Amino acid sequence: MRATTIHGPGDIRVEQVPDAAVRLPTDAVVRVELACICGSDLWAYRGVAKRAVGQRIGHEFLGEVVEIGAEVTSVRVGDRVIAPFVWSDGTCAYCAAGLQTSCVDGGFWGSNGSDGGQGEAVRVPHADGTLVPFAADVDEAALPGLLTLSDVLGTGHHAARAAGVGPGSVVAVVGDGAVGLCGVLAAKRLGAERIISLGRHEDRAAIAKKFGATDQVAERGEAAVARVRELTGGLGAPAVLECVGTEQSWQTAMGIARDGGRIGYVGVPHEMPGLPLGDLFGRNISVAGGVAPVRAYLPELLADVLAGTIDPSPVFDRTVGLDQVADGYVAMDERTALKVIVRP
Amino acid sequence: MRATTIHGPGDIRVEQVPDAAVRLPTDAVVRVELACICGSDLWAYRGVAKRAVGQRIGHEFLGEVVEIGAEVTSVRVGDRVIAPFVWSDGTCAYCAAGLQTSCVDGGFWGSNGSDGGQGEAVRVPHADGTLVPFAADVDEAALPGLLTLSDVLGTGHHAARAAGVGPGSVVAVVGDGAVGLCGVLAAKRLGAERIISLGRHEDRAAIAKKFGATDQVAERGEAAVARVRELTGGLGAPAVLECVGTEQSWQTAMGIARDGGRIGYVGVPHEMPGLPLGDLFGRNISVAGGVAPVRAYLPELLADVLAGTIDPSPVFDRTVGLDQVADGYVAMDERTALKVIVRP
Repeated sequence: MRATTIHGPGDIRVEQVPDAAVRLPTDAVVRVELACICGSDLWAYRGVAKRAVGQRIGHEFLGEVVEIGAEVTSVRVGDRVIAPFVWSDGTCAYCAAGLQTSCVDGGFWGSNGSDGGQGEAVRVPHADGTLVPFAADVDEAALPGLLTLSDVLGTGHHAARAAGVGPGSVVAVVGDGAVGLCGVLAAKRLGAERIISLGRHEDRAAIAKKFGATDQVAERGEAAVARVRELTGGLGAPAVLECVGTEQSWQTAMGIARDGGRIGYVGVPHEMPGLPLGDLFGRNISVAGGVAPVRAYLPELLADVLAGTIDPSPVFDRTVGLDQVADGYVAMDERTALKVIVRP
Repeated sequence: MRATTIHGPGDIRVEQVPDAAVRLPTDAVVRVELACICGSDLWAYRGVAKRAVGQRIGHEFLGEVVEIGAEVTSVRVGDRVIAPFVWSDGTCAYCAAGLQTSCVDGGFWGSNGSDGGQGEAVRVPHADGTLVPFAADVDEAALPGLLTLSDVLGTGHHAARAAGVGPGSVVAVVGDGAVGLCGVLAAKRLGAERIISLGRHEDRAAIAKKFGATDQVAERGEAAVARVRELTGGLGAPAVLECVGTEQSWQTAMGIARDGGRIGYVGVPHEMPGLPLGDLFGRNISVAGGVAPVRAYLPELLADVLAGTIDPSPVFDRTVGLDQVADGYVAMDERTALKVIVRP
């Protein structure tokens, strides 16, 4: 089969690789219908996150089950399924607690030795614990919305939950990438009354508004902090969603947080110094979040997407075939695309 | 009047200073009946936290109101009151939200220009927002327990609250100083089912046991982490109270926290590098807490102390007069005393 590999900074290829196949009785093989490129893939693309030469890449996909191991009971051949961005056994103490990202036998698509999502098919370990079926007859047009359940929608939701967002909340969202936008959507879904979206791209601001942002802040750095404080009676936002993971975004997040507030963070930390505990201490600012257990959130979010209550699909603004996947990386790296679908 | 001053590392003196007096109509003057020395005072004593030469020191006291300003309505001359370790106006948005430590017009006893608690009397700004009266006829023997409401009991309670402790919780407490011990007591009071207390001093372990600790870990560093994990099915504790504030105590706290758990921290950060966000991210460990708004907790904790439901007084193991206050610092610095009462 063919799959995307990374050979170094900026060197994305599509190559012939061994066919995905059931190896353990708990495996399934999924033929990928749709995959996509994640902002976090760009850290590998830029060489910041290290990868082995030729390692697979991509961790978001949905598709059709084409083979199952002898012990798989929750999905059947022909089912259409969504894969969260990590696999998990579904039975360990962490999975039972809804923290599948800490599964004792879990793993990340594209990690060495596993298949990546940006390919024709994926061997899925622990299929029962990992895959979530959706109605086989859903319209083709609904697939992009469902694909966000693989990562970005659940990740934005995790940020909102970690920040304690609920009915009536006042929320500020740092980051206008797909995750930040999904954070806006998730905050709205959880009942936030006021959602301040930070970001300087007009097209993304338009999506944020569609998703529920009530205020937009295009300024950056100190000016952004001043603007959010102005919008919140000088106090800052009680709930802040940090959806970037850089030193600058954290400075903004801490600057706009109200004393006593909560920062829910899901931006993968990169080139970050340690958090300045003394500042957080004096102001009683909580920091919660991390790698999102999207598997735990998938059923409830799936129900809302299928019902049309929420539509996260506007985070995608380009589709490429597998042969053009490198173009998709270029587009996201240069920010000419927000998030790119890969259709193998 | 006479009050304690600090003139440099290890240089604690008792000096003649201007009498505490009402300056603003919202002030009161409290004659100090009991004060005490805090573990955090030792940072100044050791020269780690900088102080001006001759600055006042001490931030925990209770006593009798001897003068009030024209606008003070909540306390009268003759009332006996507890002062939380910061003063606060009681009316700003932060005070209204129960975060008096962020009061827009608040301050810390002993900060430059204010009276410290370790003296004969204290000018209390914003008396209405700050002071909490207790029954005038309480027995002398009850005063040490009430004195803990000035800081350590409320601070331990804050750690427990920040860590999400509630009925049935499994909690680990890092630090066997007065705050850590009060953290044990607070966790017990909040309904924790299992309380693992870390500390290597046998006398303190005995108090922790009296306060509700169900398990004791005398090991330090990696061995302590291994022991707590052993006690928690290999997973670690879902709630961790960090009551020290050093790099080592934080390493222990993070090491014993269960993935998805919460660290409630109240140890004043000293000589701490930044928090390693990448580790916390991968394990979804939340960090909450900070300088404790003990004023917010004072009424409910006072009621329990007066009712005898909880007795935090065992954290005190020595009493000195004002003239011997320097001896009290030596004793706490050398750990021959746990916490020292100063009786002016």
